[in-house]
Amino acid sequence: MSWLRSAFQDELDGVTQSLLELSSLVSSAITQATHALLTADLSEAEAVIAADDRVDEIQHELDARIIDIIARQQPVASDLRALVTALRMSADLERMGDMAHHIAKITRLRHPGAAVPSELLLTIEEMGKVARLISDKVGGIIDSKDIDKALEVEKDDDEMDLLHRKLFTALLEPSWPHGIETAIDMTLIGRYYERYADHAVSVSRRIHFQVTGKYNNES
Amino acid sequence: MSWLRSAFQDELDGVTQSLLELSSLVSSAITQATHALLTADLSEAEAVIAADDRVDEIQHELDARIIDIIARQQPVASDLRALVTALRMSADLERMGDMAHHIAKITRLRHPGAAVPSELLLTIEEMGKVARLISDKVGGIIDSKDIDKALEVEKDDDEMDLLHRKLFTALLEPSWPHGIETAIDMTLIGRYYERYADHAVSVSRRIHFQVTGKYNNES
Repeated sequence: MSWLRSAFQDELDGVTQSLLELSSLVSSAITQATHALLTADLSEAEAVIAADDRVDEIQHELDARIIDIIARQQPVASDLRALVTALRMSADLERMGDMAHHIAKITRLRHPGAAVPSELLLTIEEMGKVARLISDKVGGIIDSKDIDKALEVEKDDDEMDLLHRKLFTALLEPSWPHGIETAIDMTLIGRYYERYADHAVSVSRRIHFQVTGKYNNES
Repeated sequence: MSWLRSAFQDELDGVTQSLLELSSLVSSAITQATHALLTADLSEAEAVIAADDRVDEIQHELDARIIDIIARQQPVASDLRALVTALRMSADLERMGDMAHHIAKITRLRHPGAAVPSELLLTIEEMGKVARLISDKVGGIIDSKDIDKALEVEKDDDEMDLLHRKLFTALLEPSWPHGIETAIDMTLIGRYYERYADHAVSVSRRIHFQVTGKYNNES
């Protein structure tokens, strides 16, 4: 019954579309959150905070839809695995949105001051760029299932780890001129970017596993 | 065919047993990680780090088993929801294990020094106690599906948030005598305990939702 298979395929395509929408929203969110953080822009930070509700809504709707597809279509083997993987990817993407939201909240908390001292603006700008690059790439991989791109994401994450270490090195300079509050903010902000990238890596590994049946690394 | 229903019920019971085992392991892990942190005990920290592999193993095995049950039994409605919820709970519990592991790694990094300065020992001890209490309670709820206990977990989490704020207040005292490194460690440690409790709350909310069909709070 090819029409049945095709209706199911349409439903799977719909799931992929929603994952793409999520990846696009969280990529915009981290881009805006970084810009707001670097420029101490309160209204942009507020926009990121407000937009996170939409990410949560899409994720809830998508999860309910996936469970409904499993219940109705009773897929087995690779189709079932694809749907379970989609559930996990939606959770990772939702969490990436939370990280952008957390960064925006620090911007709001310190406004009209700037959370990031001038010495660290470039490092944070780089972390924001890598975060954006990695989530855009993950969007591409969700769409194309391109396994080589999934391996690239691992390297982008290494770049994020380097930047994260650079941030700590700067905080620990004996000449660090800023106080404890700034060190706390920067520790949390660094952690949020690192976790954003970790979740993106997790999405790319799930796709790699779904396509190849093999883990491309420790997960 | 009551024997079929009963075989399925046995499989669901097996899933619950594995979730209980995970909750027991992560409760031990946070208890040991806290003790190691407070006493700068390297061998105890190493034990926590090593034990986390077992948590990861059980989670991977459990997830594969759940997907296999869905594929073979093709459950619908509440049975399917219970299995999907179990997948999510296993992810939360695995993450709680990671938080204990992260805390143990800070203990190891600072050894033979102590990561926690004397002024903060009591606060961290309290955070460890609340973390243990909350994960033990979550184990009880996985077993009993007791909804009132699930509501208690929300209050325990409020207690964790209070302790977390108390920690930041201490770090930000103008008289704080310790340096940036200690402030960074304490910021991360505080975040790990808070996230541990958040994931426990998430497990209790999932059970509440599974039993009642209603969210007991924003999740």
